[in-house]
Amino acid sequence: MKKIVTLGEVMLRLSPPGNQRFFQTHSFDVEFGGSEANVGAALAYWGMDVAHITAFPDHEIGWAAAGQLRKNGIDTRFIPHVSGRMGVYYLEQGAMQRSSQVIYDRAGSAFANLEPSKLDWDAILEGADWLHWSGITPALSQNCADLTLTALQKAKEKGVKVSGDLNYRSNLWQFGKAPHDIMPKLMELTHVIIAGTRDFKQCLNEDYKSFTEVRNMAFERFPQLDYIVKTDRISHSSSNNTISATLFGKKKTFSSRSYELTHIVDRVGTGDAFGGGLIYGLLHMKPKDAIEFAMAAGAIKHSVPGDILLCSLQEVKELAAGEGGGKIKR
Amino acid sequence: MKKIVTLGEVMLRLSPPGNQRFFQTHSFDVEFGGSEANVGAALAYWGMDVAHITAFPDHEIGWAAAGQLRKNGIDTRFIPHVSGRMGVYYLEQGAMQRSSQVIYDRAGSAFANLEPSKLDWDAILEGADWLHWSGITPALSQNCADLTLTALQKAKEKGVKVSGDLNYRSNLWQFGKAPHDIMPKLMELTHVIIAGTRDFKQCLNEDYKSFTEVRNMAFERFPQLDYIVKTDRISHSSSNNTISATLFGKKKTFSSRSYELTHIVDRVGTGDAFGGGLIYGLLHMKPKDAIEFAMAAGAIKHSVPGDILLCSLQEVKELAAGEGGGKIKR
Amino acid sequence: MKKIVTLGEVMLRLSPPGNQRFFQTHSFDVEFGGSEANVGAALAYWGMDVAHITAFPDHEIGWAAAGQLRKNGIDTRFIPHVSGRMGVYYLEQGAMQRSSQVIYDRAGSAFANLEPSKLDWDAILEGADWLHWSGITPALSQNCADLTLTALQKAKEKGVKVSGDLNYRSNLWQFGKAPHDIMPKLMELTHVIIAGTRDFKQCLNEDYKSFTEVRNMAFERFPQLDYIVKTDRISHSSSNNTISATLFGKKKTFSSRSYELTHIVDRVGTGDAFGGGLIYGLLHMKPKDAIEFAMAAGAIKHSVPGDILLCSLQEVKELAAGEGGGKIKR
Amino acid sequence: MKKIVTLGEVMLRLSPPGNQRFFQTHSFDVEFGGSEANVGAALAYWGMDVAHITAFPDHEIGWAAAGQLRKNGIDTRFIPHVSGRMGVYYLEQGAMQRSSQVIYDRAGSAFANLEPSKLDWDAILEGADWLHWSGITPALSQNCADLTLTALQKAKEKGVKVSGDLNYRSNLWQFGKAPHDIMPKLMELTHVIIAGTRDFKQCLNEDYKSFTEVRNMAFERFPQLDYIVKTDRISHSSSNNTISATLFGKKKTFSSRSYELTHIVDRVGTGDAFGGGLIYGLLHMKPKDAIEFAMAAGAIKHSVPGDILLCSLQEVKELAAGEGGGKIKR
Amino acid sequence: MKKIVTLGEVMLRLSPPGNQRFFQTHSFDVEFGGSEANVGAALAYWGMDVAHITAFPDHEIGWAAAGQLRKNGIDTRFIPHVSGRMGVYYLEQGAMQRSSQVIYDRAGSAFANLEPSKLDWDAILEGADWLHWSGITPALSQNCADLTLTALQKAKEKGVKVSGDLNYRSNLWQFGKAPHDIMPKLMELTHVIIAGTRDFKQCLNEDYKSFTEVRNMAFERFPQLDYIVKTDRISHSSSNNTISATLFGKKKTFSSRSYELTHIVDRVGTGDAFGGGLIYGLLHMKPKDAIEFAMAAGAIKHSVPGDILLCSLQEVKELAAGEGGGKIKR
Amino acid sequence: MKKIVTLGEVMLRLSPPGNQRFFQTHSFDVEFGGSEANVGAALAYWGMDVAHITAFPDHEIGWAAAGQLRKNGIDTRFIPHVSGRMGVYYLEQGAMQRSSQVIYDRAGSAFANLEPSKLDWDAILEGADWLHWSGITPALSQNCADLTLTALQKAKEKGVKVSGDLNYRSNLWQFGKAPHDIMPKLMELTHVIIAGTRDFKQCLNEDYKSFTEVRNMAFERFPQLDYIVKTDRISHSSSNNTISATLFGKKKTFSSRSYELTHIVDRVGTGDAFGGGLIYGLLHMKPKDAIEFAMAAGAIKHSVPGDILLCSLQEVKELAAGEGGGKIKR
Repeated sequence: MKKIVTLGEVMLRLSPPGNQRFFQTHSFDVEFGGSEANVGAALAYWGMDVAHITAFPDHEIGWAAAGQLRKNGIDTRFIPHVSGRMGVYYLEQGAMQRSSQVIYDRAGSAFANLEPSKLDWDAILEGADWLHWSGITPALSQNCADLTLTALQKAKEKGVKVSGDLNYRSNLWQFGKAPHDIMPKLMELTHVIIAGTRDFKQCLNEDYKSFTEVRNMAFERFPQLDYIVKTDRISHSSSNNTISATLFGKKKTFSSRSYELTHIVDRVGTGDAFGGGLIYGLLHMKPKDAIEFAMAAGAIKHSVPGDILLCSLQEVKELAAGEGGGKIKR
Repeated sequence: MKKIVTLGEVMLRLSPPGNQRFFQTHSFDVEFGGSEANVGAALAYWGMDVAHITAFPDHEIGWAAAGQLRKNGIDTRFIPHVSGRMGVYYLEQGAMQRSSQVIYDRAGSAFANLEPSKLDWDAILEGADWLHWSGITPALSQNCADLTLTALQKAKEKGVKVSGDLNYRSNLWQFGKAPHDIMPKLMELTHVIIAGTRDFKQCLNEDYKSFTEVRNMAFERFPQLDYIVKTDRISHSSSNNTISATLFGKKKTFSSRSYELTHIVDRVGTGDAFGGGLIYGLLHMKPKDAIEFAMAAGAIKHSVPGDILLCSLQEVKELAAGEGGGKIKR
Repeated sequence: MKKIVTLGEVMLRLSPPGNQRFFQTHSFDVEFGGSEANVGAALAYWGMDVAHITAFPDHEIGWAAAGQLRKNGIDTRFIPHVSGRMGVYYLEQGAMQRSSQVIYDRAGSAFANLEPSKLDWDAILEGADWLHWSGITPALSQNCADLTLTALQKAKEKGVKVSGDLNYRSNLWQFGKAPHDIMPKLMELTHVIIAGTRDFKQCLNEDYKSFTEVRNMAFERFPQLDYIVKTDRISHSSSNNTISATLFGKKKTFSSRSYELTHIVDRVGTGDAFGGGLIYGLLHMKPKDAIEFAMAAGAIKHSVPGDILLCSLQEVKELAAGEGGGKIKR
Repeated sequence: MKKIVTLGEVMLRLSPPGNQRFFQTHSFDVEFGGSEANVGAALAYWGMDVAHITAFPDHEIGWAAAGQLRKNGIDTRFIPHVSGRMGVYYLEQGAMQRSSQVIYDRAGSAFANLEPSKLDWDAILEGADWLHWSGITPALSQNCADLTLTALQKAKEKGVKVSGDLNYRSNLWQFGKAPHDIMPKLMELTHVIIAGTRDFKQCLNEDYKSFTEVRNMAFERFPQLDYIVKTDRISHSSSNNTISATLFGKKKTFSSRSYELTHIVDRVGTGDAFGGGLIYGLLHMKPKDAIEFAMAAGAIKHSVPGDILLCSLQEVKELAAGEGGGKIKR
Repeated sequence: MKKIVTLGEVMLRLSPPGNQRFFQTHSFDVEFGGSEANVGAALAYWGMDVAHITAFPDHEIGWAAAGQLRKNGIDTRFIPHVSGRMGVYYLEQGAMQRSSQVIYDRAGSAFANLEPSKLDWDAILEGADWLHWSGITPALSQNCADLTLTALQKAKEKGVKVSGDLNYRSNLWQFGKAPHDIMPKLMELTHVIIAGTRDFKQCLNEDYKSFTEVRNMAFERFPQLDYIVKTDRISHSSSNNTISATLFGKKKTFSSRSYELTHIVDRVGTGDAFGGGLIYGLLHMKPKDAIEFAMAAGAIKHSVPGDILLCSLQEVKELAAGEGGGKIKR
Repeated sequence: MKKIVTLGEVMLRLSPPGNQRFFQTHSFDVEFGGSEANVGAALAYWGMDVAHITAFPDHEIGWAAAGQLRKNGIDTRFIPHVSGRMGVYYLEQGAMQRSSQVIYDRAGSAFANLEPSKLDWDAILEGADWLHWSGITPALSQNCADLTLTALQKAKEKGVKVSGDLNYRSNLWQFGKAPHDIMPKLMELTHVIIAGTRDFKQCLNEDYKSFTEVRNMAFERFPQLDYIVKTDRISHSSSNNTISATLFGKKKTFSSRSYELTHIVDRVGTGDAFGGGLIYGLLHMKPKDAIEFAMAAGAIKHSVPGDILLCSLQEVKELAAGEGGGKIKR
């Protein structure tokens, strides 16, 4: 059984039931989610040994957050409960031509204040096969940027493979640093980068005319890099998307099949499901099959409410193999 | 800030959750809605100064109805709480080939019994830019027909622009008068008429071969008329409609883009959202942009549960500008 | 008013709300359903006199099951409340490429233990016009196989028409008998068989190259047979199916129109709604209209949550006549 | 098995969940209830053969009302579905010092318009052992007063015992008759009267100084009278009541034990549960045991949400026997 | 109609349904509440003209907060929508020996950042009869302390009566000032102080041996002071409290009756209901009746879920007059 | 940190919301619970290292059961997912004089079929400080009786302290053995027995006149025994109980304070909370404090919905110290 470590903030997710708007709701469905922990949860559901690194406040809601990670199969023993608030994100599910909307309320969270020295990195990475991070974490605070760098350096020491989802978000990076102050160093320590052209541009503060140019640059500039992975999404409406993905190796490129997602239940976390599928795939399959498995994981997540892909290995494999007709399983 | 007055009944709306049928439900979702107040609520959400004229029973459910209007930004100070019952409409949401169903239970309501003399029309219309009525009100009772006429006459005195949604409904008009006994006089006092061929036929008790004929007749017969507005809807199923709209001026005609509404959440109130969009558009934009804005408002309402369009100006404007791809807004 | 008797197990149906997975749910929606009782409920909703034969445990949940049948218009006076558990089926609703999932937990139920001698068959079939059974019942236990045979023999004695939905399920037949040990005798006593090629193969333990071959064999081997009825479903995804049906008489064949079911609410029980429609149709219409009515009943059921078709005669007839545009009925 | 007929209006009951006020609720729990049908439902739950006489509108909500009666074991075959609305009552559950509140909206209901000649009284009362009515029915409309009288006269012809719960309500009697115009004739045809001093005063338009005076008058004036039954309730708060009851025969008087109801779940329908218990008791027990059984039924109803006593014979008998300690039954 | 202005933060209130703990909940009931706005809402429900001063974020949840105030009858026209987050408080309802628990998450809110100069104080206090503040506001930030002082000074200029609920909370006052740096100046501008001994001690940084000592000191030190009001609560358990209150004038003292609150639904906001009752009472009644009315308002609030007293004038007056037996009102 | 192992079945718990009866419910709240795992969950919530031994079916509901244990802090790595069904218990919450009701449906569960040899007992008990079992397990099946004995023998080998809650239930023991065939051997291996007189009688098939007699017998017959613990409950009604407990050592006896539980939320699992408190107490406190802590844990559980005590160490300690007044904690 492979051991995977994921690193990042987990927030309280509050969303009105169904397609209600914030203005009209009288209750919030409660979930806990965060990009990297979502990746970890997908892997844990498939039987991997997953530990997540974050921090929670030391009150009942912080305990509930840890409990939910455990329910999802994640080892929470390395998560400190410290002072600071619980980060929150409010999510309103769109429909048709109306967009989904996220209001972040994560400033001053327990995780944003976490210092790298508070964690026992040797214990955390002991026996690990893989470490996953995303570009959201270094964008939160200097502490979080330091935390990511420490984790990646330790991973290098221990020979742990590293994947990173660049995931550039313009409304973060509020603490005085620009992405290109911090991201290049992290990318140098990463073996699998999930990103599109825009992410590369922002993280490196360079301009690229095409993804081909990005790809050539990346394999040259980052010699440790094994794969670049890019997803493509056509958003016809909030309810209907088309997605596919491509894995770029140094020599070979593999594209997944394309999925018509015609009745989307929950788009949030679909990139994380894809990320989880990718790590699983690269650990257990040939690249060609890995990207197919990853995209199937990302696709089927659109049918599951919440942040987390709760689909079995068998379900994802069947979809990757082209079966998605939705017959009742009895 | 523009001031708009709307006039009409507001009912308690009771609907089974989700796609349940009346026969099987064990709870009703509670909303309050009525065509003209829905128009007003859309305008209030966009920052207009809106007062609604209706009547409610003087008990806690009547107070709740007024409270809900206030929540939606509507000035309720002119609404009397009187004897009479709360009008009710039961709504069952259809899906696919199964139609939505409405059971009206509005006879004997507080509003149906309201006499025009009970209202301080001068105070109500003081400083108003626009008055909106619909053909539902005069169809309820002689009192309501009188109320509408009084309002329109007062509006004329004060130079207030008037829009009317003819909205002919065959199951109303139970109080001994036919539409053509009452509607022509109201249409003479209206500057913007929202209606299709059938509405004109019923309200004027005449036959027309085409909408072109209707249009020519209308501008001739009603010299005060500025615009006729017509919406077109193709109902593929309860879940999937195509809609568009056209604004006929005396000289020019403008058609909106057409919308594919592929995953309808709630069709009720979409005409009212269109009406609100039309009034906002005509008050703030050129006719060409107004009809585009109005249709975008009507289209996006299909994604919002309840009677009321709860979409910001920005959301409607983006859709009117051709953006409706449903990307998550963070 | 026609009198129809249906025979079969009714289970407690437990399903997570909306599109939740079992893993994440915190509540179950409670329904009661079973193939043959679902057929009966459709017929009762249309005003037929329907009695259902099953057994329930003698505790409050068993009483609730009987109560629910009564609510649906079914005569429950012949249902014994005996020892044994309540059969359960857990249902998770799929969406898009994710399949719906059923976990059966029906072993040892009160019905599985029911002996034919416990029932007063003369009273049950007194005045009956029709008896309906399905291949699920003889697959449950020897008692249930005996029960079915007894019922069919009694029906023959009394000249009651019999329909049977072969409904072969590989995960049943656990009590030591194979389908072909039992089913042929039951098919000999049945006038209307609902089945596809695979059902015939399994029930008769023969191989057939085409449905035409099946059809020819069946009318030859089973001289009492009036009709074979086959439904065809293309499952594009859990949310989107295409269905149609064909009625094969000895001489003539009639096919229904085909339905695009683009936003499926609940697929469970759609075959039973079809079965109910078929019985109603054959009792009241020409074969050509009967298959059209039956398919409309099956199609519209996809829009109703739960096991039961809760659509009026008028709704089904309108759909069978080609009206399915989903306009709001006021 | 005894056969009982009950007569009266059944309304849609709409109540906010928990202790919410009407002003704040966003959903209503849906039940169907009415005093006399509640009596019938209690008796049906105990295995009696119960038919209820009322009328419902001929739409899906009216069908649902009939379905709910059937679920509760009541024979609905004599209930016509006619024009007229569904009567509604809105119920807000109080707590502590805050009272529960009922808003009636029952004018113009299908039942209020029902004429006695529309019913086949011979079929209805065929084989009946008991008929139950209440003072609510003749207070609704002249039709309803006539209906009650017809029922009682037919019962006398057929030798059916009659009970009546006088249940005087000052906000009814709006159709031009006073109680004493109508009630005396009905009381003359009744063998068991449930009433307190105030009910007798209002129904007979007389003044009485004490219940002893009432009792003496009643047995003298109404020679057919077997029993007068009176309940006593001390309402400490909405959550906490003390109740007891007394049965007055011509010669003997029996009082039930007194119950402390310290955590009331739902007070509505407790008098009807008592009435059901009384009929059951008088049909199956000695008077002394009957009043004890009736009061136990009334008491335990306070623990059941909704209008209906859903407690088994065994539960009521145990409580009547002095067991009410609330140990978990496994 | 009296005009009242209230000033203070309004937070999003998130609470698990029923008696669930934070650790186990999967949804939050959504309300908006804050001590001073709760006072205002009680007054508005009784028909007073109430304006509330606060600030909200300029996003949909901030709009919803304002909408909810409007629903409760509060004039929100003076509330700016600015940057900053929505303050949140998480509330877990206790039961019996388990305490209710509040987790505050209000740092950095839009209101905490509001500067006094942003508001048009003349418009706000135009025609006002009363201004109400609480000790929570100056404890939040220097801005909020300044805001309170400004409001009170303006009130003095305009001759507006002022009430203040000292409401000392040790977990606030985090911005570098102690209560006695700020509170004395505010108390000097207040005519009615609601407080207990501990509040006086903390706000004045003095020690007092008894409330008598407090009272004598207060009337001497604060010559403008009309009344001191103190509530007394014995908390037997989360579900059962005894409360009473006393109004101390310069010469006379009046105590309310005492209430046994035996089945508490929601304790939050009961002090605010009392405050609202006190203001109403002092504006409309003699002191003796005012304190009785205020305590009745505070008592009955324990039966209403949410922050807000939603009880009519009549309900409160009846309870103040000694009627609280909880009979059903029909 | 102490390590505790618990052993026993975990069932799916299905209960109607609030005080609904099974007959009327339309949804079930879903929990997972079982006596011994409940004990473990309480200990895990207080930071102990707890592993639970049971078996679950290998489908999504079985995975959810394991997930829920993990959420509650329990190590599930030793739990096999095997064939067999998920045991179910249906729970209806009583109120006042109406009892709560449990319908068990646990025959044929995955756990009942589990053989001792399938488990790695050395790994399970490695480093354990305590093992807890109950009399429910050996009552389920021969496999389960063997499993318990194996566990206790292994514990003895490894010097692990053992507690057992005899918990005699007459409706179990269906597999051909009587309690006294099996229980004595298990009691001989147990250091802390939780039981009342009736449990001892049934497990040893002896008669005892008093608990003093039981106590003397037990310390004599079971020399390894450290403590006998007995709880006393007076059930005034389903809503109101009085409880206390006593710890009998060989020499000394300590009684806890007595608790009035006046508004019971959920009685289920209160004995398990007590058991968890007892183990925690005996591991960390003096006997006198341990029994006080245990009873506080048992008492406060009555306020928490579900099977599990979700109260912090601090909450329980405060209650044990006499603080239970239910003030709001902010």
